[in-house]
Amino acid sequence: MPKPQPIHYEEASAEVRAVFDDIKRTRNIPDVNNMWKYLARDPATLRRTWESVKEVMGPGELPLLTKELIYLAVSVTNNCGYCIASHSAAATKAGMTDAIFGEVMAIVGMANETNRLANGYRVPIDPAFE
Amino acid sequence: MPKPQPIHYEEASAEVRAVFDDIKRTRNIPDVNNMWKYLARDPATLRRTWESVKEVMGPGELPLLTKELIYLAVSVTNNCGYCIASHSAAATKAGMTDAIFGEVMAIVGMANETNRLANGYRVPIDPAFE
Amino acid sequence: MPKPQPIHYEEASAEVRAVFDDIKRTRNIPDVNNMWKYLARDPATLRRTWESVKEVMGPGELPLLTKELIYLAVSVTNNCGYCIASHSAAATKAGMTDAIFGEVMAIVGMANETNRLANGYRVPIDPAFE
Amino acid sequence: MPKPQPIHYEEASAEVRAVFDDIKRTRNIPDVNNMWKYLARDPATLRRTWESVKEVMGPGELPLLTKELIYLAVSVTNNCGYCIASHSAAATKAGMTDAIFGEVMAIVGMANETNRLANGYRVPIDPAFE
Amino acid sequence: MPKPQPIHYEEASAEVRAVFDDIKRTRNIPDVNNMWKYLARDPATLRRTWESVKEVMGPGELPLLTKELIYLAVSVTNNCGYCIASHSAAATKAGMTDAIFGEVMAIVGMANETNRLANGYRVPIDPAFE
Amino acid sequence: MPKPQPIHYEEASAEVRAVFDDIKRTRNIPDVNNMWKYLARDPATLRRTWESVKEVMGPGELPLLTKELIYLAVSVTNNCGYCIASHSAAATKAGMTDAIFGEVMAIVGMANETNRLANGYRVPIDPAFE
Repeated sequence: MPKPQPIHYEEASAEVRAVFDDIKRTRNIPDVNNMWKYLARDPATLRRTWESVKEVMGPGELPLLTKELIYLAVSVTNNCGYCIASHSAAATKAGMTDAIFGEVMAIVGMANETNRLANGYRVPIDPAFE
Repeated sequence: MPKPQPIHYEEASAEVRAVFDDIKRTRNIPDVNNMWKYLARDPATLRRTWESVKEVMGPGELPLLTKELIYLAVSVTNNCGYCIASHSAAATKAGMTDAIFGEVMAIVGMANETNRLANGYRVPIDPAFE
Repeated sequence: MPKPQPIHYEEASAEVRAVFDDIKRTRNIPDVNNMWKYLARDPATLRRTWESVKEVMGPGELPLLTKELIYLAVSVTNNCGYCIASHSAAATKAGMTDAIFGEVMAIVGMANETNRLANGYRVPIDPAFE
Repeated sequence: MPKPQPIHYEEASAEVRAVFDDIKRTRNIPDVNNMWKYLARDPATLRRTWESVKEVMGPGELPLLTKELIYLAVSVTNNCGYCIASHSAAATKAGMTDAIFGEVMAIVGMANETNRLANGYRVPIDPAFE
Repeated sequence: MPKPQPIHYEEASAEVRAVFDDIKRTRNIPDVNNMWKYLARDPATLRRTWESVKEVMGPGELPLLTKELIYLAVSVTNNCGYCIASHSAAATKAGMTDAIFGEVMAIVGMANETNRLANGYRVPIDPAFE
Repeated sequence: MPKPQPIHYEEASAEVRAVFDDIKRTRNIPDVNNMWKYLARDPATLRRTWESVKEVMGPGELPLLTKELIYLAVSVTNNCGYCIASHSAAATKAGMTDAIFGEVMAIVGMANETNRLANGYRVPIDPAFE
């Protein structure tokens, strides 16, 4: 297996095209981004991942902006370069301003710090939280 | 150094009590939770951490509920048991319902999944995201 | 200390050359890959790491392909770019096809997702698993 | 929202019972394990997660044992206590012996070690792996 | 929000300049490094982060070299490319030699390995450590 | 394979006993801690891990206390409960005071915070660090 390569619409199978078409329609965009073109190497994973993302990020309890900020916060914590770039863009499209971005980064930073302080000091869970 | 032990209000120094008092006043609670009692072993870290958390989680661009959900999402990603318990409680106090919790967990799960798919497929960042 | 630089065979000490030679002989390759050239900055770590890798990845209970897939799965989870690239190549040499790669990525993705769902929902271990 | 609690078959909705029934039938077990009882708090996530796991861990390119070993390797890397326990049990059911377990742990350990050595030495990807 | 861009001294507000000036004075350097120029997008986070780093990395119990080695060890474990580069430089300035770097990497590697062995073997804490 | 169980000296093979004896002699302790008793399930991994730890943590460039603090910092970052407990004890034996522990935790916390700020702001490496 050589390094993974993207599959573009023109060369895609009918099965892959159907997913690409649904992504473009759902998000009202002219082309899918690289993530989907690479996942297209495995049509079952492409379909399953898209359907899951569509369900999870679709209308629900929280506004889309909040959902995208959570997605971004996880991606920053995991240091996924691609995901930070793509979800920064998605969050911006959903309304993230410079000020909101700064606030999210500040929270992500503090959470990563206090997570380790809790680990290191071996803090037991308060009975009230059980 | 034996295993870290909490410092309770009665045995705390004036410096530590001042921080405990500010936490209780700011959050309108009768006692601080375990995290602060353990950090009190190091008064400088107690004060610095509280002042940072107070600033970051205070009034700003995002509603408190959104901030707490982001904190929880990071804590779940890092698997910090104490932080998951305490920030689940804090988010609930800020308005998190069962349905919102379920939605946040679903997003955190998908983000952790797609972060690894992007890593493994070595997906390059789209020029539009640069 | 400037940024780490590789040590090539021609400039290597006898101690380092002996390790390089054993890697080349064991893997039947004309040159070692970058990882070993950088570890050669610290001959003790070069030797210890190679001997450990040689023992762990050598003949045992599992076929080499399975071992390489496990190595790749960990590297993807940790987002080590170098390791993803080198172990994708090693797994391919050991028989990984596009279809197998897709299956491994799907499993790695799901495991990272369900790991966080278990964390967030604070699921207790079933007595049967203890 | 209080601490998440499991939903048992007797108290489950028809939608949740349908998923529980499918898990029990597919795996030929008398009851589902805790993970599913907790995910049942969110029927959409329960269904989506089960259908994804069923697809990913079902018959494919790799034998079930290999798939379970990969799932276990990721769970150990992420330190998910619940997942380590449940997938150790699942791998054992699929044929994992003590000797195989030892070999997988050895690989997971070495991969986590060399991932960091590659990070720290800032090793560039060999052209042959691009 | 487009991709974050640095803020240079000439274009910085008085608030940001004051922080930049303090960093340059404290560290006796002609210009701040990129990290601070990017954090300057959010002056409150710039100030809070600098004051915290200044306090934590300032004179205390441990020599500066030891502190920088710990910072580097965490950054390597988390695979933060920027932080590995900047703290390798900072540690070198504080006295890190090639031999010390090699020793730190060896420890970081072993710790990441044995952390996973402890997870996977589900080793219970010895009573003596409680 | 049932849940891993420890192997005690009395029931250990000659190969395992030889490693246990070397650990006890090297560290001047009456019995090995749980980690080694669990690794004894796989004598090759027991021996390899002990010999690597012995080499890496033995006399070298850095004092033992510094080495143990680095080990602890990594373990806290990875949230390995067993390793935090055992290396807190080992560091204490090597001279860690309450004040040093507090300082290390403060550094680990800040490093985990700034690692994520660097990720999220996508800070490019300064030319001076390349």
